[in-house]
Amino acid sequence: MQATAGLTLREEHRCHGGSVQFYEHQSEVLGLPARFGVFLPPAALEGKRVPVLYVLAGLTCTDETFLIKSAALAEAARLGLAIVAPDTSPRGAGLPGEDTDWDMGTGAGFYLDATQEPWNRHYRMDSYISRELPALAEAALPLDGARRGITGHSMGGHGALVHALRNPEFWKSVSAFAPIVHPSAVPWGQKAFTAYLGEDRTAWRAYDAVCMLEDGLRHPTTILVDQGDADQFLERELQPWHLETAAKAVGQKLILRRHAAYDHSYWFVQSFACEHLRHHAAILGGL
Amino acid sequence: MQATAGLTLREEHRCHGGSVQFYEHQSEVLGLPARFGVFLPPAALEGKRVPVLYVLAGLTCTDETFLIKSAALAEAARLGLAIVAPDTSPRGAGLPGEDTDWDMGTGAGFYLDATQEPWNRHYRMDSYISRELPALAEAALPLDGARRGITGHSMGGHGALVHALRNPEFWKSVSAFAPIVHPSAVPWGQKAFTAYLGEDRTAWRAYDAVCMLEDGLRHPTTILVDQGDADQFLERELQPWHLETAAKAVGQKLILRRHAAYDHSYWFVQSFACEHLRHHAAILGGL
Repeated sequence: MQATAGLTLREEHRCHGGSVQFYEHQSEVLGLPARFGVFLPPAALEGKRVPVLYVLAGLTCTDETFLIKSAALAEAARLGLAIVAPDTSPRGAGLPGEDTDWDMGTGAGFYLDATQEPWNRHYRMDSYISRELPALAEAALPLDGARRGITGHSMGGHGALVHALRNPEFWKSVSAFAPIVHPSAVPWGQKAFTAYLGEDRTAWRAYDAVCMLEDGLRHPTTILVDQGDADQFLERELQPWHLETAAKAVGQKLILRRHAAYDHSYWFVQSFACEHLRHHAAILGGL
Repeated sequence: MQATAGLTLREEHRCHGGSVQFYEHQSEVLGLPARFGVFLPPAALEGKRVPVLYVLAGLTCTDETFLIKSAALAEAARLGLAIVAPDTSPRGAGLPGEDTDWDMGTGAGFYLDATQEPWNRHYRMDSYISRELPALAEAALPLDGARRGITGHSMGGHGALVHALRNPEFWKSVSAFAPIVHPSAVPWGQKAFTAYLGEDRTAWRAYDAVCMLEDGLRHPTTILVDQGDADQFLERELQPWHLETAAKAVGQKLILRRHAAYDHSYWFVQSFACEHLRHHAAILGGL
């Protein structure tokens, strides 16, 4: 397989005139091999540096999930928008409990840097997403780091909101599908944050979108969020009304759309994915 | 789970204003439980009987593959076209060798009725596709059996061509993605046909699209076929030039498109799936 600047190309497929590519590399911050997927639109194959949307997947998903299931690549090709899809956690760290629960450990990195033993050595997805991966991908591929957006689904929606609010200069556009907006207040978040960040809840606020808005962080653009009303996790884990209330209270621009009958699955994500791509392209600029 | 006319609804998801549904039922002709997937466009949910495209998947695939990976449901919703996606073989027949090879047995039914022991008791996908499934699905769901088309990928492309040529009144439109056009002449087909149909090659002609054209069968519409030129199975298993030659010799209308750089994967299928849906809708009529 071809290697470029520390990247090993595992798979490559022509798709909608562009190219789907899956890479592996040795991650310094994770201390493990890591994988990510890419869609390059036709414009990138023709030599242009294109705007790029990073997509963070949800619990149990991988670098392949969004690319296979989002049905969004034709629109990305048309808009001239690249997609970078990282994995959802380190893999193979060999930690006790890493593979016991589907909502902790493997597939559940929550896009944060763990501070607690035994997670703190490898579970550093914050540093991976916010520094190592963009630097690596944008050095090796025709991606324009000045036009970089972020989105995600569920746990990945949480990641997109948190990263964009913390660094709005770096992530110039942001959206989310059925995100965990207030992890400090719901079981998934409380379980993960206790294990990764410890019992002191003040440390949780830096990874909780609702708390970050309360603490003064903002994104200068409108945040687009879609949420299905038949989502099986709506009441217990997602609670988008907290985001709506916090955004309204502090003046953060937000479009939160509720969709009757849609659930939490990728059948929901694919139904609105093209609209999210257009939201990002309108801010980042396209072809 | 809900049961309708012998069908058990296993899963249902709102998607693009329509509905993705996965059913299980006891198949009489297979003598086993069988599964299929459906996409109903918004028009069907509003009470209209809609035209329906049956999609036959390839080796190792299932009733879920096309629905998840084709990225075609938004277009099906727009066209008012339903999709029915059967499984690729009986499952759980418990036959010796059924799960030994990926190109024989489970996941590899070749859409034929086996005549040889031990396959002939359960491996009757021809009868299932051409009679039992349409009767069942069209009685239970708002599908218009007078406007029924068929397509498929690889082994499923073979199935689509064979079934449409044999019964053009029943299957009013036909297309295929990277089909096995001449199974009698290639390793996949020879292996499967020998096991399922026996050594006598005259019996193979009824399940070989090129032979069927030579033997006088025709479809009154134009057959649309897409094929990637970087397909790893092009030279050994697919050999689309045999279809082109046979169609030209007998006057069968055929559009065979070759696409540079595309391979055999669903990244290829999704790149042209919407065009296939429009091909079928133009013949079957849509909204």
